[in-house]
Amino acid sequence: MAWNSNLRWRLPLTCLLLEVAMVVLFGVYVRYDLDADTHWGTEKKRRNISSDLENEFYYRYPSFQDVHVMVFVGFGFLMTFLQRYGFSAVGFNFLLAAFGIQWALLMQGWFHHVEDRYIILGIENLINADFCVASVCVAFGAVLGKVSPVQLLIMTLLQVTLFTVNEFILLRLLEVKDAGGSMTIHTFGAYFGLTVTRILYRSNLDQTKDRQSSVYHSDLFAMIGTLFLWIYWPSFNSAISYHGDSQHRAAINTYCSLAACVLTSVAMSSALHRKGKLDMVHIQNATLAGGVAVGTAAEMMLMPYGSLIVGFFCGIFSTLGFVYLTPFLESRLQIQDTCGIHNLHGIPGILGGIVGAVTAAFASPEVYGKEGLVHSFDFQGFKEGWTTRTQGRFQVFGLLVSLAMALLGGIIVGLILRLPFWGQAADENCFDDAVYWEIPEEKSPVHIHDDPALKPGLYSPPLVPAVPTVSSIPVAASAMPLVP
Amino acid sequence: MAWNSNLRWRLPLTCLLLEVAMVVLFGVYVRYDLDADTHWGTEKKRRNISSDLENEFYYRYPSFQDVHVMVFVGFGFLMTFLQRYGFSAVGFNFLLAAFGIQWALLMQGWFHHVEDRYIILGIENLINADFCVASVCVAFGAVLGKVSPVQLLIMTLLQVTLFTVNEFILLRLLEVKDAGGSMTIHTFGAYFGLTVTRILYRSNLDQTKDRQSSVYHSDLFAMIGTLFLWIYWPSFNSAISYHGDSQHRAAINTYCSLAACVLTSVAMSSALHRKGKLDMVHIQNATLAGGVAVGTAAEMMLMPYGSLIVGFFCGIFSTLGFVYLTPFLESRLQIQDTCGIHNLHGIPGILGGIVGAVTAAFASPEVYGKEGLVHSFDFQGFKEGWTTRTQGRFQVFGLLVSLAMALLGGIIVGLILRLPFWGQAADENCFDDAVYWEIPEEKSPVHIHDDPALKPGLYSPPLVPAVPTVSSIPVAASAMPLVP
Amino acid sequence: MAWNSNLRWRLPLTCLLLEVAMVVLFGVYVRYDLDADTHWGTEKKRRNISSDLENEFYYRYPSFQDVHVMVFVGFGFLMTFLQRYGFSAVGFNFLLAAFGIQWALLMQGWFHHVEDRYIILGIENLINADFCVASVCVAFGAVLGKVSPVQLLIMTLLQVTLFTVNEFILLRLLEVKDAGGSMTIHTFGAYFGLTVTRILYRSNLDQTKDRQSSVYHSDLFAMIGTLFLWIYWPSFNSAISYHGDSQHRAAINTYCSLAACVLTSVAMSSALHRKGKLDMVHIQNATLAGGVAVGTAAEMMLMPYGSLIVGFFCGIFSTLGFVYLTPFLESRLQIQDTCGIHNLHGIPGILGGIVGAVTAAFASPEVYGKEGLVHSFDFQGFKEGWTTRTQGRFQVFGLLVSLAMALLGGIIVGLILRLPFWGQAADENCFDDAVYWEIPEEKSPVHIHDDPALKPGLYSPPLVPAVPTVSSIPVAASAMPLVP
Repeated sequence: MAWNSNLRWRLPLTCLLLEVAMVVLFGVYVRYDLDADTHWGTEKKRRNISSDLENEFYYRYPSFQDVHVMVFVGFGFLMTFLQRYGFSAVGFNFLLAAFGIQWALLMQGWFHHVEDRYIILGIENLINADFCVASVCVAFGAVLGKVSPVQLLIMTLLQVTLFTVNEFILLRLLEVKDAGGSMTIHTFGAYFGLTVTRILYRSNLDQTKDRQSSVYHSDLFAMIGTLFLWIYWPSFNSAISYHGDSQHRAAINTYCSLAACVLTSVAMSSALHRKGKLDMVHIQNATLAGGVAVGTAAEMMLMPYGSLIVGFFCGIFSTLGFVYLTPFLESRLQIQDTCGIHNLHGIPGILGGIVGAVTAAFASPEVYGKEGLVHSFDFQGFKEGWTTRTQGRFQVFGLLVSLAMALLGGIIVGLILRLPFWGQAADENCFDDAVYWEIPEEKSPVHIHDDPALKPGLYSPPLVPAVPTVSSIPVAASAMPLVP
Repeated sequence: MAWNSNLRWRLPLTCLLLEVAMVVLFGVYVRYDLDADTHWGTEKKRRNISSDLENEFYYRYPSFQDVHVMVFVGFGFLMTFLQRYGFSAVGFNFLLAAFGIQWALLMQGWFHHVEDRYIILGIENLINADFCVASVCVAFGAVLGKVSPVQLLIMTLLQVTLFTVNEFILLRLLEVKDAGGSMTIHTFGAYFGLTVTRILYRSNLDQTKDRQSSVYHSDLFAMIGTLFLWIYWPSFNSAISYHGDSQHRAAINTYCSLAACVLTSVAMSSALHRKGKLDMVHIQNATLAGGVAVGTAAEMMLMPYGSLIVGFFCGIFSTLGFVYLTPFLESRLQIQDTCGIHNLHGIPGILGGIVGAVTAAFASPEVYGKEGLVHSFDFQGFKEGWTTRTQGRFQVFGLLVSLAMALLGGIIVGLILRLPFWGQAADENCFDDAVYWEIPEEKSPVHIHDDPALKPGLYSPPLVPAVPTVSSIPVAASAMPLVP
Repeated sequence: MAWNSNLRWRLPLTCLLLEVAMVVLFGVYVRYDLDADTHWGTEKKRRNISSDLENEFYYRYPSFQDVHVMVFVGFGFLMTFLQRYGFSAVGFNFLLAAFGIQWALLMQGWFHHVEDRYIILGIENLINADFCVASVCVAFGAVLGKVSPVQLLIMTLLQVTLFTVNEFILLRLLEVKDAGGSMTIHTFGAYFGLTVTRILYRSNLDQTKDRQSSVYHSDLFAMIGTLFLWIYWPSFNSAISYHGDSQHRAAINTYCSLAACVLTSVAMSSALHRKGKLDMVHIQNATLAGGVAVGTAAEMMLMPYGSLIVGFFCGIFSTLGFVYLTPFLESRLQIQDTCGIHNLHGIPGILGGIVGAVTAAFASPEVYGKEGLVHSFDFQGFKEGWTTRTQGRFQVFGLLVSLAMALLGGIIVGLILRLPFWGQAADENCFDDAVYWEIPEEKSPVHIHDDPALKPGLYSPPLVPAVPTVSSIPVAASAMPLVP
């Protein structure tokens, strides 16, 4: 299919239109929360508190910044592993997240924070917006390399909308607990992304095989993403938990689960290689599965050993997924999952939902204390007959709803993204920054992989690889001549 | 001009002398703030507070660390975009910032924190010192690649001094509000740096054209800097605001402005390229302009949509600046602005000053509440007849003073730096780490670009670019032989 | 010696066994601290505090996250400076730290936090576990490139054990103060690591000379590690100090010491090069020595100028160490110290112990206030006759015990690691990721440095730089032909 990937006008107009819409909607709807308003002084008196520290800001700001790093540096750099797609990985992630957080502030605001017809904006909204966007970043991982920035902005617009509806159903209607978002963020994001990439299936991606792999230092760049995600995940899972012990516990559980997950990921990575060698893909991704899988249960009394067990199995399942499932999905189900999000967010997300449901169902007054149980699960007086078993059952419903929303939403969004005028790249130009970016030092007028002379085997020694920038090294190199 | 760029003795002596001076001056003048002193126990009783949390440390430390990351990782890596100047970018930034914060602690201490003839040192001083140094990092961006580390240390010494005087005039004499430093940090830093680089004008930099551009992964390294600056900017603008709602609001406004700025930067970057391709320079820089431009107003009741509007226009102006203004400044005004700081800090800084003035002038008791207005703008009783309009007018004066100080100071400092004995590099060696750094794997005794034989075209195939380290790839590669 | 470096089964079994043990031990022993338990509500009432902020979490969590970044990103990337060993540096560091923190939680728990037969887990434990692992990361720096991941896991298991015993002797029996771990972490870690590497001495490492150096961008990757270590070191040294002024003071002192250290490191680096050029190794490492050397005294009334003095001398000693001592250790004492940890952690660690002892010995009621003195050094009533001089003397004993434990422990562990079945690499494969990692783009079936045709000198100009992935650049390049 001959696509026009020239973004001039398409991208600028999309960006400007969306941003103008944001300005107008923020103008009409968004105001400061009392904690962020100059009326805080009176508010302090009203609440009868003496210290500015009781401002929500100080409870949440450090966690917020950690989450912010995860979304922009973590996801952004994690996806730079492709040898020629670093600019797009980090740049498009930046773009979609920057738009996504604004739209999420509005959407989540309308559903959860309207007061006196205005959306009330405080630090918690910022965290939730980052969470919502994290789910888009997850989905981005599935379609990485195959979509244009215009498609990404459209996808963000729609996915954020669906996310918020799903979140509303789970948190408000089903009264499900999901502080770290195993269901709302990871399961939803992963299966949404997988459905979209299925619908956008491209049958001719074989020709870009080279570019779908990494090179030595693109793998190192990706490790920057991995490590910041891993390190700050305890902040992610605890960021919007209740003050005090809930935040504290969520951080501890996540820390434990992640630590266990590293060991089993390494174990499986080595065990599944015929010479026992480790694979960077597993280290970059499977090690994080432990964070995903305690997303729901982290704030509950999962116990440290419980967290270890969750991490233990996640590392194993996730690595197995990379080795066996991803190739299967691609060859049999035509699901091209660039980053393997099914293994990092899909399976662990579902697992996390189940772990949460089980932990909730077996919560007992002996462990939680009567008061603690009521507090942890919001068992207020009005919920007559609501037991922990009911809670557990509803947690499962929440998981199923998330899956359904992801599939249904993914189909609709996928079909929209298949429309031919979003500036998509042709199959042979996928996974290549040069389509959408001015690449430094690209001196030869013909782009290197459009030039048949540079294909391996056909190469007659000219001008030797004009400028072996990183981007051109692999192809150029394998094409290098055996000097007579 | 035949300059001697050998730093032996010059650099060591400068460093040691400055550091000895620091030790002596700290010994004579600097003591701990009560919050950092073992007398805190008695202090706690005196202030009648029960909790250690009321120690200033807990209000400010997380923000401090974020700002610290911005100064050292943010600015440092942002400037690694040059293909052969990464060591210097990150290393010299490290050096000047490490010296600058010490000198800033003294200077700012003398002007703002003397108590009982001692400078009183607490967490707020550390943040302010980082702020002051950020202004030097901004100026460094203009002269990057063209000055020696000795020059940088001299510049830091003098710029920190001037910064502090300017800050004193603004904050104390004109009673201007400028929490995020649109005027004191960015406007001052940018125009100071631009004046210095104008005076250090080198007419023969064309020959280093290659080295003035980036390569693929130097651009990725630079994105590390960009993202950490972008992520932590809300901490920057809120770090020294009043406790509670001011800090909270400053963070929210900055978050909003930055998000909007990304979309318009991307839009303009694409719109201004004939094929609609994005330029990494814009993504690395213009996306940050939104943070600069809400520096003054972030803690005011700018409103979320106000922040979006500021970010919206900044992204546009900044990108336009990179495309049209920077080449103009260089060709017509002989201002060689390596990093384009005029577009990232200059224009947005001025804009930020104006936004702050307008926001202050139109502050009303309806929006702020009477109490809030007095609190936000320090309208204490003794300031009879001081209205928000007066405040707005003085904000404008502050901006003008900053510009004047920057130009005047820049001229003086520029002339001092033009003295021929600071170890400057020759024109043909600018933008090259090899002048000041032991570069790994440079095995050939002749340095590559000192060897006429290695210039493209003149090349007679010797020993082929001994070791194509990154630093030598571009030249080496284009020089590669047509194998017979 | 013909070693079998195939890790299949060795590594997976080690990992799985260790992790299963962790799960079981956590199940039997580890429970939540009251601050992280749902009983916090009752606890709050018991302690008669009104705010959730009094939860230990809010005092320590931001520091914890900073320390976490230091361990995983800081140490991990600092060690990526080797040209072909980036995967192992960052990956093995990740593995050993993830295992180490779990084991440290148990060991330190048994020694310090048992309550009612359970280990009580809270945020402080997490920080201490990270601290303990930091000491392993230090030791890892000495053996980097020469050991298998299995050896590293064994070393971690044993070193964490020894660390905890040593820590117990110092903090509990000798009642030594060592908040930033100059003695327990750095001195112990460094001399332990040096002893191990001495025992694992390999006489034939000359053939890997090339791979023991850096390349241009591996040095930039390493700077990511350096800067995050440098920036967050104030958090490291203050993370477990007493609330309030102690934490505040520790952060200030560390900040000052580190700043001074940068200047003298740069000075010495330039002074010791015959052309005055800077060496990246010094900038990456010696600049951090100031943080190590105020580890013990940071929370004491060292005074800002005292910190500057400490940093001043550390920068000098550390750089001198890199230039003169490291080669001496290798050639004369057969201590192959890959990262030069002796200069970054060894000498500064000892110095830090001494500075701490002196500062403690000369602590006076005039400076600390009577109350402050008792509080700072835990001079409770029961310690009759305990003066600051006694404290100083015991600090010295602590240092000596740490050294003794390091040497003794290092010998034992070194001997264990010398057993031939841990999957060690052969001498000629040291410092090479390809032994343990699936390396991207390694297309030639023969690994490049196993191929005699590619050895410099023997090279007959074929195939121009076979595949210039980063990993193969150096060898390939130095092998480049003199085209006829």
